[in-house]
Amino acid sequence: QGTRDHPPALVLLRDRLLDTVAACFKRHGAAAIDTPVMELRETLVGKYGEGAKLIYELQNQGGELLALRYDLTVPFARYLAMNKITNMKRYHIAKVYRRDNPATSRGRYREFYQCDFDIAGQFDPMIPDAECVRIVHEILSDLQLGDFLIKVNHRQILNGVLAICGIPESKFIATCSSVDKLDKMPWKEVRNEMIREKGLSPEAADHIGKYVQLHGGLDLVEQLLQDPKLSQNKLAKEGLGDMKLLFEYLTLFGITGKISFDLSLARGLDYYTGVIFEAVLVQQENDHMEESVSIGSVAGGGRYDGLVGMFDPKGRKVPCVGVSIGIERIFSILEQRVKASGEKIRTTETEVLVATPHKHLVAARLKLISELWDAGIKAEMLYKKDPKLLKQLQYCEDTGIPLAAIVGEQELADGVVKLRDVARREEVRI
Amino acid sequence: QGTRDHPPALVLLRDRLLDTVAACFKRHGAAAIDTPVMELRETLVGKYGEGAKLIYELQNQGGELLALRYDLTVPFARYLAMNKITNMKRYHIAKVYRRDNPATSRGRYREFYQCDFDIAGQFDPMIPDAECVRIVHEILSDLQLGDFLIKVNHRQILNGVLAICGIPESKFIATCSSVDKLDKMPWKEVRNEMIREKGLSPEAADHIGKYVQLHGGLDLVEQLLQDPKLSQNKLAKEGLGDMKLLFEYLTLFGITGKISFDLSLARGLDYYTGVIFEAVLVQQENDHMEESVSIGSVAGGGRYDGLVGMFDPKGRKVPCVGVSIGIERIFSILEQRVKASGEKIRTTETEVLVATPHKHLVAARLKLISELWDAGIKAEMLYKKDPKLLKQLQYCEDTGIPLAAIVGEQELADGVVKLRDVARREEVRI
Repeated sequence: QGTRDHPPALVLLRDRLLDTVAACFKRHGAAAIDTPVMELRETLVGKYGEGAKLIYELQNQGGELLALRYDLTVPFARYLAMNKITNMKRYHIAKVYRRDNPATSRGRYREFYQCDFDIAGQFDPMIPDAECVRIVHEILSDLQLGDFLIKVNHRQILNGVLAICGIPESKFIATCSSVDKLDKMPWKEVRNEMIREKGLSPEAADHIGKYVQLHGGLDLVEQLLQDPKLSQNKLAKEGLGDMKLLFEYLTLFGITGKISFDLSLARGLDYYTGVIFEAVLVQQENDHMEESVSIGSVAGGGRYDGLVGMFDPKGRKVPCVGVSIGIERIFSILEQRVKASGEKIRTTETEVLVATPHKHLVAARLKLISELWDAGIKAEMLYKKDPKLLKQLQYCEDTGIPLAAIVGEQELADGVVKLRDVARREEVRI
Repeated sequence: QGTRDHPPALVLLRDRLLDTVAACFKRHGAAAIDTPVMELRETLVGKYGEGAKLIYELQNQGGELLALRYDLTVPFARYLAMNKITNMKRYHIAKVYRRDNPATSRGRYREFYQCDFDIAGQFDPMIPDAECVRIVHEILSDLQLGDFLIKVNHRQILNGVLAICGIPESKFIATCSSVDKLDKMPWKEVRNEMIREKGLSPEAADHIGKYVQLHGGLDLVEQLLQDPKLSQNKLAKEGLGDMKLLFEYLTLFGITGKISFDLSLARGLDYYTGVIFEAVLVQQENDHMEESVSIGSVAGGGRYDGLVGMFDPKGRKVPCVGVSIGIERIFSILEQRVKASGEKIRTTETEVLVATPHKHLVAARLKLISELWDAGIKAEMLYKKDPKLLKQLQYCEDTGIPLAAIVGEQELADGVVKLRDVARREEVRI
């Protein structure tokens, strides 16, 4: 349930997509690593908030207690700590596992690819963070998926807002998870949830509502820096300072047109500590509609300065920031596009079919194909002793093989091969 | 335990290896498929003989009972049956999982790659089988691993031998598992095991011994076809007929020099029904030694005509033959070779570092690198506001970046960039 086989046409399409993503990661100087699909259970504990219940555990068959990885970020942090690496730019493209309710038509599976790029190390503020946002921008542009929007926010700003609204720290996470739903439900419903399910007072909820419904650009950052209450909060002030610098760098990168500072963006994972961001595809469903419709998140990431330290025996921290491209959703869009276009994808690369026009020539075919393979030429033959020529040419047409190399008694006697261009139905003796 | 992280240099080396294998599979016209890492437990039951106890099971967290795949052959058979495919040439390169005792120095892990090529369909005898053997020959030649030997045998010949030696069918599998050890221990010990552990009579064991110690080429096939007892056994006669045809085709492929018909080859998996084969690397440890020393199996495969039918509700059979390349052992050899050579592998592809010679120029760097990325050029910069030029050039030398694009106040004023060849220490203004 929630997994699927990939037949050749889908593998090909998926590999094209992964290649585009990997090309961008390499363009930014990242090196690839790989980690096992299973981690010690204790490695995954306490990193994913409400996601914890979705972790696949392996049966205890004696020995270590294991679980399937839930993302690629925690294994990366574990890898850095285990190998005492304090400085690394890496990418990792691999499958992760979540016991979620599958919604396969929207690309939500229990086994799915993640494409992660992360920068670990102590650096000057916001330079690596800005590069991660730039990478999201590049990949979504390269993939030509249509219009998109990258929402950015900062955990410290969010915490500052909650603090000045009088929310106790013990309710931060629960409140954030309500705030995070603002992209899917109207403020009124989110407010109700805060009051009824999270136990906030109507006044506190309304106070929060004034902030988290704000979105804008550098102007909004400036405006909040002037906000009498928020600017008094240390956390929020630092966060707003980061955000100002981030916008400065994103302006130099020339990509602020698609960036929105959105105070409702919270992101669910426990480990984020600074800038967070999320990209959504924006579909212009109808020119007459005033608001564009979001069809869901396709990339996300942020800064997590505390995670590596959780795996170091001495708690030494390695600041990190990274981005994860959610290719399954993108893949399901591309899949539908290919289906709609009726494009036939060739799933093999065979250049030539070795064929014979009459019986008792299997030896000639085996000898010729052997020579072709030796020469590095992609060649096939039918696995029949005496196939009909028509069947052999039909196979070329069905599978898109452009050439047939035909050897009959006459060709053998003359020491030649008849080379046939399948589409043009033209032959030459060579 | 028994798994490992792959740092960038190893990922690169591994990908080179996998690319070589995939190139061969594509040269033979195979298409790629992918299947989930987990299968229903019931799919794996009863397919692996003694291997069954090594299957990783997932915890029952509600829902389906799952296990990690043990190989790629059973998932392929399940895929064919589920999709009612009766004809396919596919390859699959992916990780599989076995709770074995790890021996990491010899490349035996609990998580490891397999590279499988299989031909499914009803065809004329031995043509696909010969191609699988040819593929092993091509890959081991392409990888330049030194001398190797491909042992071939036939399940029906083995069963025929046991039958004429008076072994009851109930003891076939147990006896075969003793026979299979002949490559690792002398006949005397194998004989002892047969008598003491498997309950064979000394006479029966000796009778078996006369056959399973034989190895040779087409001559041995001819000799056994004349054997008065064996040639009377229907199974053995069919098997020897197959073997004769196989040798005919392998001769046309020009590869019999490295093929040995070896009656001790049994292979452990339950699902084989016909030709079986296994490749070993042969190390010429010492010119003075008479016998060459085998350093273990690096590829294996065979025919399994009954497996797909086990997954079809009506039991419809799809004959299959395939080969699996055990790249972890090959990888551990290559790894040692690279280590011994001291070759330094570059793990990133960055073409140019964007650098500045003095302070307050982070904006200039961000603007220039942005242009380079837009143009598809692989570019990095240090994540410092004001890095020293020496540090920046040092980074190029450490990571093998060939060029530095330097912008200072003068260059900005003149509208140029100073391009430095890092190795030659030469600069041009462009």
